[in-house]
Amino acid sequence: MLSESKIIGFLKNQFPEQIGDDAAILPLSKHKSYVISKDILVEDIHFRFKYHQACHLAHKALQVNISDIAAMGATPQYVLLGLAIPDHGRIYIDQFLENFSAICKASSIILIGGDTTKSPDKLFISITIIGLIANSHIKFRNRAEDGNLICIAGNLGDAHIGFTALERNIAGLEPFKENFLKPNALLKEGLWFSKQRDVTAMMDISDGLFIDLKRLCMASNVGAKVDIDKLKFSDTFKLACEILKLDPMVTLLTGGEDYGLLLTIKPEAYSRIASKFKACFGYQLKAIGQITKGSEVHFIQNNQLKTLNLQPFAHFGESL
Amino acid sequence: MLSESKIIGFLKNQFPEQIGDDAAILPLSKHKSYVISKDILVEDIHFRFKYHQACHLAHKALQVNISDIAAMGATPQYVLLGLAIPDHGRIYIDQFLENFSAICKASSIILIGGDTTKSPDKLFISITIIGLIANSHIKFRNRAEDGNLICIAGNLGDAHIGFTALERNIAGLEPFKENFLKPNALLKEGLWFSKQRDVTAMMDISDGLFIDLKRLCMASNVGAKVDIDKLKFSDTFKLACEILKLDPMVTLLTGGEDYGLLLTIKPEAYSRIASKFKACFGYQLKAIGQITKGSEVHFIQNNQLKTLNLQPFAHFGESL
Repeated sequence: MLSESKIIGFLKNQFPEQIGDDAAILPLSKHKSYVISKDILVEDIHFRFKYHQACHLAHKALQVNISDIAAMGATPQYVLLGLAIPDHGRIYIDQFLENFSAICKASSIILIGGDTTKSPDKLFISITIIGLIANSHIKFRNRAEDGNLICIAGNLGDAHIGFTALERNIAGLEPFKENFLKPNALLKEGLWFSKQRDVTAMMDISDGLFIDLKRLCMASNVGAKVDIDKLKFSDTFKLACEILKLDPMVTLLTGGEDYGLLLTIKPEAYSRIASKFKACFGYQLKAIGQITKGSEVHFIQNNQLKTLNLQPFAHFGESL
Repeated sequence: MLSESKIIGFLKNQFPEQIGDDAAILPLSKHKSYVISKDILVEDIHFRFKYHQACHLAHKALQVNISDIAAMGATPQYVLLGLAIPDHGRIYIDQFLENFSAICKASSIILIGGDTTKSPDKLFISITIIGLIANSHIKFRNRAEDGNLICIAGNLGDAHIGFTALERNIAGLEPFKENFLKPNALLKEGLWFSKQRDVTAMMDISDGLFIDLKRLCMASNVGAKVDIDKLKFSDTFKLACEILKLDPMVTLLTGGEDYGLLLTIKPEAYSRIASKFKACFGYQLKAIGQITKGSEVHFIQNNQLKTLNLQPFAHFGESL
């Protein structure tokens, strides 16, 4: 059975030095590197015309890519835009391009190229983004160490609530819908973490905490225990889940597309980093568990091992 | 009406310094630059499963991108592969990935990243390629000067004959089909031209000579006159056009996907460069006309202006 992880596994086996982080490194000088990443958005897989306005989509397409650059700790510099446009997407595209250009300019990102072609029926958006970073600041996902604290910046599960409400045509729940339609990459936070030496590993959470933590552990050759009691959800979150008949813990652990940051921090540095983070960004850096030896990701509740039956977010097999 | 040229025009207007060549420049050092380009291939627009075997498609997808790097005079170094895979493409993909990896390795190109996702119905391939070049060797398309000779390296129209034969399910014409199914970028030639100071401008011919020469003229703010008598076609080419009821001159001027090189050369240097080229590559560098003042592309036959009713190759409006 084909899957995204099998494809990446095959390619990583072929090119073991290069594949496997949010973005790849393009050597630039002794002190600096470019980082480069590409993300594809496909109509009716990642977005729908019926609820994604062109301005939303332009914002989302760029932010999804910026998130990969932020996760390395870099600053986005350049972007290439590829579009395959179906007949029904033509009216939509003018507004998409205007918004895309405006957002690039507002973010000091320069559009340097791309490709445009016709598509038989669905709109495909393929973006390549290039960032710049000091070599000593690059954060990889394969450097987590036994004993590090697992930390989260940003929301978990909110976008999935918004997505579910939009798909089921449920009125209200606007802040959640906004999270799904117009996510914001944690660019400033990524840059800030890149300068903290005691942040050992970092990646973005695009496919949900459950699967992305597994990826971080696999890359770092470690395991993890997640303290479920530390995964708090607000009353609004709980109420939204009730309305949509979603399990709040499952939604929080497996909902994708929030584009928060997952990081590991040396335990002795956590309180210093967390209080500076709170002072700087006005919200909490949450410690939710610890990196362990081994390779398993365990969930703990009331000091007991808890078995959760979670289905990771996967493009193959998902039906939007 | 939306068109590829309108989209590029809009974006070039927004980012005037950056857009408009085969590849974009990523500054690297005082002496070197990266060049970066992306090309999209869409099922039933650029290829069909019924005649593109996975090994053909892997080859073509990479060569189409290498051609953009070759057209700048650069050497390809890194590639990122984006795939949106429909259910019916799953069996095909294993072989595609194996071939793609093998060709990258054989060409010393390192796969450094990408993205994989599901597609509702068509296979979508998005490749980003990065090359390396000495700054003094970069060839742009906007440097053609009045009086320069217009030269062509490589075939014109062959791929279109092959494509037409495949679409109409006509047996035979194998060399033409091979040109369409497995085109080869003129990488060595591009590198060689990059070292010739008297080559003033260069680009690849992906959409047919007629439209690509117009693009070169527009970028350089010049016109051109093409001597039709210099556009010779072989007996085999003529016979293939007869079989397929294609006009040989129209096919030669507008057929896309041959991935030859279009270049302009200072007239006093032409015979020196052409004879060195012949000695080096074993085939002719054809001079087919001259760059002029103004902005029009004219066709000349027997010293008379000739009006040709040519339809440029265009993704928008084309029906594969």
